Amino acid sequence: MRIVVLSGGIGGARFLAGVRAYARTAGADVTAVVNVGDDVILHGLRICPDLDSVMYTLGGGADPERGWGRAGETWTVSGELAAYGAEPTWFGLGDRDVATHLVRTTMLSAGYPLSAVTEALATRWQPGVRLLPATDDRLETHAVVTVPEAERADDGAAQRAIHFQEWWIRHRGALPTHRFVFVGADAAKPAPGVLDALAGADLVLLAPSNPVVSIAPILAVAELRDALVSGPAPVVGVSPIIDGAPVRGMADRCLAVLEVPCTAAGVAGLYGARADGGILDGWLVDETDAQSAVPGVTVRPAPLWMTDEAATVAMVRAAVELATDGGRSA
Amino acid sequence: MRIVVLSGGIGGARFLAGVRAYARTAGADVTAVVNVGDDVILHGLRICPDLDSVMYTLGGGADPERGWGRAGETWTVSGELAAYGAEPTWFGLGDRDVATHLVRTTMLSAGYPLSAVTEALATRWQPGVRLLPATDDRLETHAVVTVPEAERADDGAAQRAIHFQEWWIRHRGALPTHRFVFVGADAAKPAPGVLDALAGADLVLLAPSNPVVSIAPILAVAELRDALVSGPAPVVGVSPIIDGAPVRGMADRCLAVLEVPCTAAGVAGLYGARADGGILDGWLVDETDAQSAVPGVTVRPAPLWMTDEAATVAMVRAAVELATDGGRSA
Repeated sequence: MRIVVLSGGIGGARFLAGVRAYARTAGADVTAVVNVGDDVILHGLRICPDLDSVMYTLGGGADPERGWGRAGETWTVSGELAAYGAEPTWFGLGDRDVATHLVRTTMLSAGYPLSAVTEALATRWQPGVRLLPATDDRLETHAVVTVPEAERADDGAAQRAIHFQEWWIRHRGALPTHRFVFVGADAAKPAPGVLDALAGADLVLLAPSNPVVSIAPILAVAELRDALVSGPAPVVGVSPIIDGAPVRGMADRCLAVLEVPCTAAGVAGLYGARADGGILDGWLVDETDAQSAVPGVTVRPAPLWMTDEAATVAMVRAAVELATDGGRSA
Repeated sequence: MRIVVLSGGIGGARFLAGVRAYARTAGADVTAVVNVGDDVILHGLRICPDLDSVMYTLGGGADPERGWGRAGETWTVSGELAAYGAEPTWFGLGDRDVATHLVRTTMLSAGYPLSAVTEALATRWQPGVRLLPATDDRLETHAVVTVPEAERADDGAAQRAIHFQEWWIRHRGALPTHRFVFVGADAAKPAPGVLDALAGADLVLLAPSNPVVSIAPILAVAELRDALVSGPAPVVGVSPIIDGAPVRGMADRCLAVLEVPCTAAGVAGLYGARADGGILDGWLVDETDAQSAVPGVTVRPAPLWMTDEAATVAMVRAAVELATDGGRSA
């Protein structure tokens, strides 16, 4: 069995740990297609927060307390950058993390595509799943916001597009936000391996990642989305919303920007039923959301709190069963 | 009084601390023209060991025990780079140091010349002297060596030019070495401010830095050397050799490559008398080398061990006096 998972960062990484554990017992192989819309170049370093969260988590190097970055992390470089007055200072750049970014940036500068760099970095971490960036091309999530008057540029423009990282980390998602834009998506091609993985998949899972800024940027790569929609595998999504609130992160704020209800059914509606021009065949919701109805999509409840790996494996098993007996053909 | 000092790294930095202290009492201003031949790009970072040694030392941030790098340094990034198998692993790259290189590399990538970057970094360190790279252009010291048979490239060539850092740090200067080459020197122009500083100088001092790989690369910038030779200021060198041995570092190995005797007089001969097509008017030697004779150059003995700042200030005072009463016109 070949499983492809579309994934964002931290929540996706935790979900993938469950998929990996499931796959080991089921003899399946797993390819993770990971969001790059959060990627950013800071201090000359190419930072890929989602790829790194997945790589560190699956490789046993993530900090389980903080939820992001490396275990045993130190912050000497950041402190020194601040002492030089080097902006931005709002992005948490750990020393261990810096080394990852140095290796990546050096390889990218030497001409290797991000997919090859990711594979090289993964030789250290041995994540046990194949990690692919959605695209090797530039694809950055920006938020179109209303800038506070005091912070407006010389042209006085009230609206400005700012990088997702600035929107979320610096401004905590609190600026009046009009929409998200995936810069570069028009021209972005799927990374090598992505289309083959989708064409050969027996099942595609959407991790319970942020639908607006983690999964949507992946789907913004037109050929990738087309391959998903026209592909042979059932597509089962796992709801990132339980009982009207995001499991973690900021899906609520992002959904509000799109005026989508912050509910399991709301997110499923955003993805849409495959039969209806969307991508979903099945939708796994938490038991508290068992009454969610999504036209054209098979909805099934299961406990969705990823409290430990066993709980996550049970979720994955439920998603596989949904695909097998109640999926596309339902 | 305006003093220009040509300087390498660690020894030059210590000397400059004495020049700065002297200048404060004498109301002089000081410009340091610093070697960039040791500069290297590793892990995508532009590293300027000599500029940084001077900046950290004069800014109070250097490690006085180790002799190079930052006080309180940590080595997390290096350890992680090694864990990724990222080469080279032989260069000591501290975490605090990495931040300096990140700021520098980012500014260089944005188009700022090294001289502007150096000025920007110095706003943090306030070195109390004006720091100028000898040139903003690429100028790298390479050593032409005989490669051990086991390490030869596919073409089997016995001789190869390797970067000075590889020669010194990786191989400890122990490979059979035929000559040093200053790559890029033909095209290198003096950095902005260097020619003006030399034209306006009342005194030029050569720090007791390595004559072969610290001072010679500066002089390899033809317009810089011409400005020094034709300039109005007396040029007084301070011997880096005391009683037949280098004060610190590897001047002995470098001089041997050039077949120059490792003596105070040998180094003065390498620089040459200005009257004779060289650059020296005066040459300050240690008292143990008082008998050194250098045709066309006024030689004067003084204690040259930089045991503390007061001793270094006394050296500088002796050099100033040599220039004033026994220099060019002697």
